[in-house]
Amino acid sequence: MRSISEIGEHHLIRRIRERAGDPPSWVTIGIGDDAAVVEPARGELDVITTDCQIEDVHFSRAWMSMREIGAKALAVNISDLAAMAAAPRAATLSLALPPALLVDDFDAMIDGFLDLSRLAKVPLVGGNISRSPGPIVIDVTLIGSARRRRILTRSGGAAGHLLFVTGSLGAAAARIERFEDTNTQGSYERSEGSYERPVFLLNLAREVAANRLASACMDLSDGLADGVSQMATASGTGAVVLSSKVPVDPTATLEHALRGGEDYELLFAVPPRRRRGFEKIAGRSTTVTCVGEMTKAPDLLLDEGPLGGGFAHF
Amino acid sequence: MRSISEIGEHHLIRRIRERAGDPPSWVTIGIGDDAAVVEPARGELDVITTDCQIEDVHFSRAWMSMREIGAKALAVNISDLAAMAAAPRAATLSLALPPALLVDDFDAMIDGFLDLSRLAKVPLVGGNISRSPGPIVIDVTLIGSARRRRILTRSGGAAGHLLFVTGSLGAAAARIERFEDTNTQGSYERSEGSYERPVFLLNLAREVAANRLASACMDLSDGLADGVSQMATASGTGAVVLSSKVPVDPTATLEHALRGGEDYELLFAVPPRRRRGFEKIAGRSTTVTCVGEMTKAPDLLLDEGPLGGGFAHF
Repeated sequence: MRSISEIGEHHLIRRIRERAGDPPSWVTIGIGDDAAVVEPARGELDVITTDCQIEDVHFSRAWMSMREIGAKALAVNISDLAAMAAAPRAATLSLALPPALLVDDFDAMIDGFLDLSRLAKVPLVGGNISRSPGPIVIDVTLIGSARRRRILTRSGGAAGHLLFVTGSLGAAAARIERFEDTNTQGSYERSEGSYERPVFLLNLAREVAANRLASACMDLSDGLADGVSQMATASGTGAVVLSSKVPVDPTATLEHALRGGEDYELLFAVPPRRRRGFEKIAGRSTTVTCVGEMTKAPDLLLDEGPLGGGFAHF
Repeated sequence: MRSISEIGEHHLIRRIRERAGDPPSWVTIGIGDDAAVVEPARGELDVITTDCQIEDVHFSRAWMSMREIGAKALAVNISDLAAMAAAPRAATLSLALPPALLVDDFDAMIDGFLDLSRLAKVPLVGGNISRSPGPIVIDVTLIGSARRRRILTRSGGAAGHLLFVTGSLGAAAARIERFEDTNTQGSYERSEGSYERPVFLLNLAREVAANRLASACMDLSDGLADGVSQMATASGTGAVVLSSKVPVDPTATLEHALRGGEDYELLFAVPPRRRRGFEKIAGRSTTVTCVGEMTKAPDLLLDEGPLGGGFAHF
């Protein structure tokens, strides 16, 4: 059982490169030089997002497998591009790793990342490996593209537009709470379809945008309450969420759904005249649920009380 | 003296946005949505790099000011784009921060980053803030562009090409050693011109590339020995470095220059018939020194012995 400190940075990069395989032809320079070189998508805008996963903040080795940790670091970024209705094109991976990390665990983490990268057709083009004096830190930047008039932002909503969410909410938060409560050790059984979900939502969001069925979109990484608040604030509206309409996952509570996040689900604002088209297109292979609407009055409400916030990072 | 945990993530993002000011018109969507949207440079390739600075690995609050820590996180990335002769276009900033960090220190770090970002004309377009259970982690991704035939890689060298370095080497490694030896506390006096240097080398590398005066280039982040080894290996050659020719900074030793790195200097391979042109263009405002050459024989030599490696991260 070798640790990564025994084989060194250059060998770790070589292991990643071997696992990643040959990049597509439009990657002019891939892993291994000072920077990567990529042909831009013709006639489209660049869409850029970055998100970081930190051990014992965003994940724990006690209740996730290394493969899933690697996949999650990419999934949260795919979710951000989905929220813009952009197509991912190239990923970079910046790792800070404790020297005692086992090479087998390193490989599993990279494999998890690369499995999802293949599924999403987003080649890994570069990155960086450093020593961490503390937790594992996995920072991913994803560069994608989209046509100018098909980008969905948070700020496009308007009073009267309906708030729709995909799938069900709260499962991730409930699962984390359960694991933390029971101090469960050992490898974590990932839920069915969790790898495919971010890719699936990507395609859904792009189809919604191509058919101009939504006015705004964002991902629910910090819970429904945070998402609705941010979208309404960016759009210059208020909002009301009806608690009875929130599609709470059977394993979770309303609080998990409102404040938890991390389910890889999307929030859309839909003009009322687009409702049928939206439900038809988006509903083809996932459930979509209207949970409320944007309002002219600036208040953020859950039924008749204040909506409150989402997950607080500090 | 408030800590960042007292004001929360959304307020920290707002502080960054206010300090960053308005982005240029080609940034369609800047800080604050799920992802940033940028118009690509017409007719050029995208060049992407990412590099991470970790407290007590790459920097220490004992011997650097917060402004310099912020600037360094961007500088190391500018140095990577300089090594490709690419022009930076957009930066993302991913921060993992201990909750007890003071807001004043946060602001100073951001100001250091933004001072250099203005100097390099590379707007901050997005990012991420998380809680760190340990050190400060600053991960920067820089997206730039360059014309296809003007990109400098590590692999373009050939036997007989001369190895040139800019400036003098070893000062950064010597300084770090000095601070570690004496356990010097308190704020760090940054050396004259250290902010400007990466931007300056960027312009120099682009002029060298535009005039086709070099066959390969890389930055010396892990010291001259590591740089020469990597460039020779990528180019399929060996190399010999002459110790008497290495431009060792007056404050440093040959070992610092060979194994230390972090001076923001560049290594170029120059075909002999381009020597005069290279020295003239590159030498206009910095010193350039020929320290050896690439060889047909695959050995990596310092004078007549083995060259050895650079800084090891693990």
